[in-house]
Amino acid sequence: MTDPEQRLAEQGLVLPEPFPSFGTYVMATVDGDRLYTAGHVPVDADRFLTGKLGADLTTEDGVHAARVAGLLLLATVRAELGGLHRVRRILHVTVTVNATPDFTEHTTVADGASDVLVAAFGDRGRHARLAVGVSSLPADLALEVQAVIAIEP
Amino acid sequence: MTDPEQRLAEQGLVLPEPFPSFGTYVMATVDGDRLYTAGHVPVDADRFLTGKLGADLTTEDGVHAARVAGLLLLATVRAELGGLHRVRRILHVTVTVNATPDFTEHTTVADGASDVLVAAFGDRGRHARLAVGVSSLPADLALEVQAVIAIEP
Amino acid sequence: MTDPEQRLAEQGLVLPEPFPSFGTYVMATVDGDRLYTAGHVPVDADRFLTGKLGADLTTEDGVHAARVAGLLLLATVRAELGGLHRVRRILHVTVTVNATPDFTEHTTVADGASDVLVAAFGDRGRHARLAVGVSSLPADLALEVQAVIAIEP
Repeated sequence: MTDPEQRLAEQGLVLPEPFPSFGTYVMATVDGDRLYTAGHVPVDADRFLTGKLGADLTTEDGVHAARVAGLLLLATVRAELGGLHRVRRILHVTVTVNATPDFTEHTTVADGASDVLVAAFGDRGRHARLAVGVSSLPADLALEVQAVIAIEP
Repeated sequence: MTDPEQRLAEQGLVLPEPFPSFGTYVMATVDGDRLYTAGHVPVDADRFLTGKLGADLTTEDGVHAARVAGLLLLATVRAELGGLHRVRRILHVTVTVNATPDFTEHTTVADGASDVLVAAFGDRGRHARLAVGVSSLPADLALEVQAVIAIEP
Repeated sequence: MTDPEQRLAEQGLVLPEPFPSFGTYVMATVDGDRLYTAGHVPVDADRFLTGKLGADLTTEDGVHAARVAGLLLLATVRAELGGLHRVRRILHVTVTVNATPDFTEHTTVADGASDVLVAAFGDRGRHARLAVGVSSLPADLALEVQAVIAIEP
């Protein structure tokens, strides 16, 4: 398989530095052949992307936020595993979108994160997904992306 | 054990055709003895069940939506595994209900999905569950049902 | 390792009696070396803690609610495993906070639960986490705490 980071680079995608946890939790845990990530938030050029979909942000803003949150998640995975090559399969992704009651474009928004995972891993990046609108998020962040990943132990 | 589909049939429950994913994700992933499903939405007679609990839909509407979403989830599992007999245990179910801030009947609604799983598998269908109200869902769907399942590899 | 219950006791934390499920689900499932809990709600002195963060409850109320929900979750784990010593690692925790659209203190609230897990297990209690604001919860409960745990089989 082509190296996942090389695949990302060929599509103009660069992993950021991992971002630390703000609370009493860690950004990822590993046990045997499973990796669980924490919810990853959108950080772009050291700026947090905040606001509510359906009010403050457009769907296109949301796609961008999901893309950068997905890249940040991969940065965590790389730091945790010493490289993305140990990812066997992205099993499940949860995308929680900070959204108004009448927002309906969650699928388009969440694809911003999912497309990054498929860009990196191809078919092994294709995952089951739950995408929902939540009433609010920490610090009014635009969304969070969380994943369960099968890895080579 | 009695065949799960026979058990369902005895209770008048029939599995629909599986429904495809709308985004960059798949309806289920399998790794070893685990199956993760995507969020499954309520489809009844080829019609999506939409609207918000506490405003557009009654609790009884919600129970029905959860039931058909649960059946659709089982249709995915059957298609993925080649039969429901390979299900060893339903480990966890998440039910996200499209609900107003003052809705309180999530447990009753979510039981619509959980009852289907117990109907199919008996005690092996009894699962841990998280049921919450979300501010909005893709395409204003009434709810989503997602599961983590232990399977025979 | 020091016994987790002794560690809790040294910090003045006592596990309550486990609380039963209200619907067609169970409070925990075990398969091999994994334990999944259901969403655990805040019960303090036999009273349910209800209300919305950002409206009815202060952030400090939320921290307290998360703490007692975390203790209730550990009571379930102890009952399921015959003791907390079989916990190998808390892998992931989801905290869903019943919150208004403008609430932003989810991290502080969720730490109430996470701190309990670290108090019990030290580094093995450090987990990945997803903390979100939901539009409503069953019976207007203040929050729910759910966990995936690696155990000694």
